[in-house]
Amino acid sequence: MSTAVLAPDRPILAAGETIDTPAMVVDEVNLHQNIAEMAAWAASLGVNLRPHMKTHKTPQIARLQRAAGAVGATVAKLGEAEVFVDQAGIDDVLIAYPVVGVPKIARLLALMERAHITVTLDSRPAAEALARAMYDADRTLDVYVEVNTGQDRAGMRAGDEAVALALDLARMPGLNVVGVLTHEGHAGASAPEMIADVALAAGQALVDTANAIRAHGVDILHVSVGSTPSAPYTPTVPGVTEMRPGTYVFYDNSIFRHGRIGPDRCAARIAATVVSRPAPDRAVVDAGSKALAMDMSPSHPGHGYIVGHPGATIARISEEHGVVLLPPDEPGFAVGDRVEIIPNHVCPTVNLTDELLVVRDGHVVDRWPVAARGKVR
Amino acid sequence: MSTAVLAPDRPILAAGETIDTPAMVVDEVNLHQNIAEMAAWAASLGVNLRPHMKTHKTPQIARLQRAAGAVGATVAKLGEAEVFVDQAGIDDVLIAYPVVGVPKIARLLALMERAHITVTLDSRPAAEALARAMYDADRTLDVYVEVNTGQDRAGMRAGDEAVALALDLARMPGLNVVGVLTHEGHAGASAPEMIADVALAAGQALVDTANAIRAHGVDILHVSVGSTPSAPYTPTVPGVTEMRPGTYVFYDNSIFRHGRIGPDRCAARIAATVVSRPAPDRAVVDAGSKALAMDMSPSHPGHGYIVGHPGATIARISEEHGVVLLPPDEPGFAVGDRVEIIPNHVCPTVNLTDELLVVRDGHVVDRWPVAARGKVR
Repeated sequence: MSTAVLAPDRPILAAGETIDTPAMVVDEVNLHQNIAEMAAWAASLGVNLRPHMKTHKTPQIARLQRAAGAVGATVAKLGEAEVFVDQAGIDDVLIAYPVVGVPKIARLLALMERAHITVTLDSRPAAEALARAMYDADRTLDVYVEVNTGQDRAGMRAGDEAVALALDLARMPGLNVVGVLTHEGHAGASAPEMIADVALAAGQALVDTANAIRAHGVDILHVSVGSTPSAPYTPTVPGVTEMRPGTYVFYDNSIFRHGRIGPDRCAARIAATVVSRPAPDRAVVDAGSKALAMDMSPSHPGHGYIVGHPGATIARISEEHGVVLLPPDEPGFAVGDRVEIIPNHVCPTVNLTDELLVVRDGHVVDRWPVAARGKVR
Repeated sequence: MSTAVLAPDRPILAAGETIDTPAMVVDEVNLHQNIAEMAAWAASLGVNLRPHMKTHKTPQIARLQRAAGAVGATVAKLGEAEVFVDQAGIDDVLIAYPVVGVPKIARLLALMERAHITVTLDSRPAAEALARAMYDADRTLDVYVEVNTGQDRAGMRAGDEAVALALDLARMPGLNVVGVLTHEGHAGASAPEMIADVALAAGQALVDTANAIRAHGVDILHVSVGSTPSAPYTPTVPGVTEMRPGTYVFYDNSIFRHGRIGPDRCAARIAATVVSRPAPDRAVVDAGSKALAMDMSPSHPGHGYIVGHPGATIARISEEHGVVLLPPDEPGFAVGDRVEIIPNHVCPTVNLTDELLVVRDGHVVDRWPVAARGKVR
């Protein structure tokens, strides 16, 4: 994976381009470069790229990823899968989340008529309900077993726990265990100097678990790892077959602060306007928690990075107010001035907006609906 | 204002009512009671009730508030004002936020043709741009001056700073200074035993500022205070003419933990399903930061209160995962079980959903579109 040279901060929008704010603007050149670079990295490793599309939630970007060689999509929820199948023509979707409950199982069966769907499971009760529904409908569902390699969110623990679950699921009619999956999100949350070690250990634990399941005669075809911060590391573990980075299409403050990617490569920004200057050291911008998700970054104070203003801190946000604390004599914060903010975590930030403003050479050239926004079900 | 008796926790949905999750459910009886009670409180004080509709963002609820005696609406953004004027027939709207920038001023002028609009200002540059536009259009805009009574977000400081700004604005053609406004959000963020004192001090500072402006010959008609936690206190200060609580239609975890309102009065919940039980002390529910806003509550650990499970803590949320830490042998967290979560902060939580499921006697009887969701501009 190439290392980008840190370039000076540069806004995406030309100074004279008037837009209503707050709005998410996306630099088209950066977006294409990010997509091409990750696709080339996966190809160089001989690993399938199945991008997590919860980041952008946007059919136009799904098509760009598919055209660059992605084998299909990863999504978090069935509702996102429905959007990418029906609006982006993606015919192979991994739902990296258990499908639980009568209404969802009915929707899943309907969606399976339109695309190849794989579902991730980590419990016997969820698997039994799905297996019964598949059996009754005379269908077989491909499943990945979710493995906990250290994040301690969902997933059975790598090793015996996960192996036992996989074997139980493999015995259920209606289910076809084809893979194992981990989300090594704990790698990206580590200190920058620890990411590689944590990511590699997670990948190895997953490969070892896959081999242990295979030793019982279950054919594990896919060994799938996730996350953008760990993308330079986990997929290099021999035996990993698939990677699911999401954030890389845009990058964000949490990524570039690791030093590998500069703010110049962060393709999505919240354009905001200074609406109040109530004190010499304080400005208010019109981007609060309804424009910038509240996730904090482990490596940068405040609620986002204001491009070109490394000394300014978005110290507090309420719904419509971003309260910016300023160093003395910081220019660019008069009422009416526009700033661009790189979000701490771009995925939930995208979830707050109905459209992306696509920018070419500083000017808005298109508006893409965030069609899978809010698809929590 | 009456004091509600703390009743045992009770879910809104009947056990047999199957819905897809996560979803926001609203108890109709609680909603009506909350609306009627606050209206009665305002009437008993002889203070105008101008509810902040950023909480619910829903035309149906705006109509209920208006029918109960609200004089009009408060909103945060012009886009919300447009929804409530056009979809709820509200003809008197206060935008409690500066209107800044060419695109917004054009929209404001258009909206002024359809309703009486008042705008809150706290700076000369924003006022000058608006005054010029109003003058050019041969219109006059009613404005409130925002006063900082201790929250240190927006607003000129109570006293000389705010008085000087008000007098400057009063001299601008096209603007008509008719009121002063404060958002005493710092009262609600105080320790429970401090709320009354902080709220009363904020109200008095605002009244004093109004009187000081009047002493210069500017007729301040409206002295407007805000927030639900401070609603029992600030509006009782003699000279306050208007109150703008928002959260009271639903209440939330931040309010009921103050002891005055019980969870039984919290009319809006996120219904969620247990989707994973990866460890004896850990469950995952399908409500993460895309269903529950990430605001923390000063008085309760975690990301919301799970009704009937005071010992369970939503310790971490990522976008689709709520990681619940459980005390030993806590029942009700098998895969497939449904829980109801009272959000820490209901307003941004509503902003994450496209519709409210209205529940009567445990059953969903209606679905109301959250028409002003996402109206950040």
